[in-house]
Amino acid sequence: MKPWLTCLDLEGVLVPEVWIAVAERTGIDELRLTTRDVADYAALMRHRLQVLDAHGLGLADIQAVIAGVEPLPGAKAFLDDLRARRQVVLLSDTFEQFAGPLMAQLGRPTILCHSLVVENGHIRDWRMRLPEQKRASVLAFQGLGYAVSAGGDSYNDTAMLLAAEVGVLFRPPASVVEAFPQLPVVTTYDEFARALDDGQARWDAASRA
Amino acid sequence: MKPWLTCLDLEGVLVPEVWIAVAERTGIDELRLTTRDVADYAALMRHRLQVLDAHGLGLADIQAVIAGVEPLPGAKAFLDDLRARRQVVLLSDTFEQFAGPLMAQLGRPTILCHSLVVENGHIRDWRMRLPEQKRASVLAFQGLGYAVSAGGDSYNDTAMLLAAEVGVLFRPPASVVEAFPQLPVVTTYDEFARALDDGQARWDAASRA
Repeated sequence: MKPWLTCLDLEGVLVPEVWIAVAERTGIDELRLTTRDVADYAALMRHRLQVLDAHGLGLADIQAVIAGVEPLPGAKAFLDDLRARRQVVLLSDTFEQFAGPLMAQLGRPTILCHSLVVENGHIRDWRMRLPEQKRASVLAFQGLGYAVSAGGDSYNDTAMLLAAEVGVLFRPPASVVEAFPQLPVVTTYDEFARALDDGQARWDAASRA
Repeated sequence: MKPWLTCLDLEGVLVPEVWIAVAERTGIDELRLTTRDVADYAALMRHRLQVLDAHGLGLADIQAVIAGVEPLPGAKAFLDDLRARRQVVLLSDTFEQFAGPLMAQLGRPTILCHSLVVENGHIRDWRMRLPEQKRASVLAFQGLGYAVSAGGDSYNDTAMLLAAEVGVLFRPPASVVEAFPQLPVVTTYDEFARALDDGQARWDAASRA
């Protein structure tokens, strides 16, 4: 029997969408654009960094804004419970420097994500650590002898959810539910924990059989 | 520039040796035997489980003992500081079930280790998740786009320390120092943090050059 390790997405699953929160708290509507509005991620990021520049906002300003963003109601208790029972690693396409203030509030879980290039407090560029890092991380943990259960909410989570032994969608948009009918959908943290646990128990039972 | 992730051994680095602590707190001297006394690890583990059985000790008893074992003085502050600055993953050859009570005291860092086979509270067997799991984990994180700095104290850490971009020995026995003269040696947590940070800075500088 392999030990279980759970991989979770961050934004939309444990905390609000970071750029939306920054847009709300700074009042800068242009920061509300997402990949739904601008399909080219690099173009979207360049736009965001230009907007921050135009408003004279550096990394410290954004981190201060993010420090005021709270985890979703119930997220900390859900995560604490999971971490007391098995290893949990967050897999996110956000940046280390944005995740930091949120991780402090969540009790410093391990998070694998990307990073910003910062010079004298100015966000100059960003570095994607790896293409498809969520899926690659699941495969890496499987290669280290773990069975992986995973939870996420959006398109960029589906490769991770499908690569995992157990994958669960948490509060996904309807388009993702339609595109991936094989993935179970939950909307509360109680259901989420139970779906992960039950999925693991079924997998273990099938492995024993 | 790659982001840094730090891998740390647990026993002897952040907490006392678990079996020694169990031997001391239970007064069962036979549990003091280590791989220095019995070279065959499987034989040693079978002996330990037999001794626990003979004393009527189940998993809950051992976990209660381990819950009373405190991290080494200064270990929590050292680990908290590291975790606030970069991702940290503990790599240990102990068992999930033994690590649990210690992880609670250390603020639940992620730990990759082995597991016990427990039936009705009785420790029946153990499962090594992977041979050479410490080295394999370092290679896996490097494969995920990280540069790895690592710290450990004994022979079973040296493959991890040598595979990492930066490896540091913390309070090692003289035999390990002699066998691995290429690895820097530190004895306080301040020196430990500095050796990891300085090693990373030197590596980054060399990468830029």
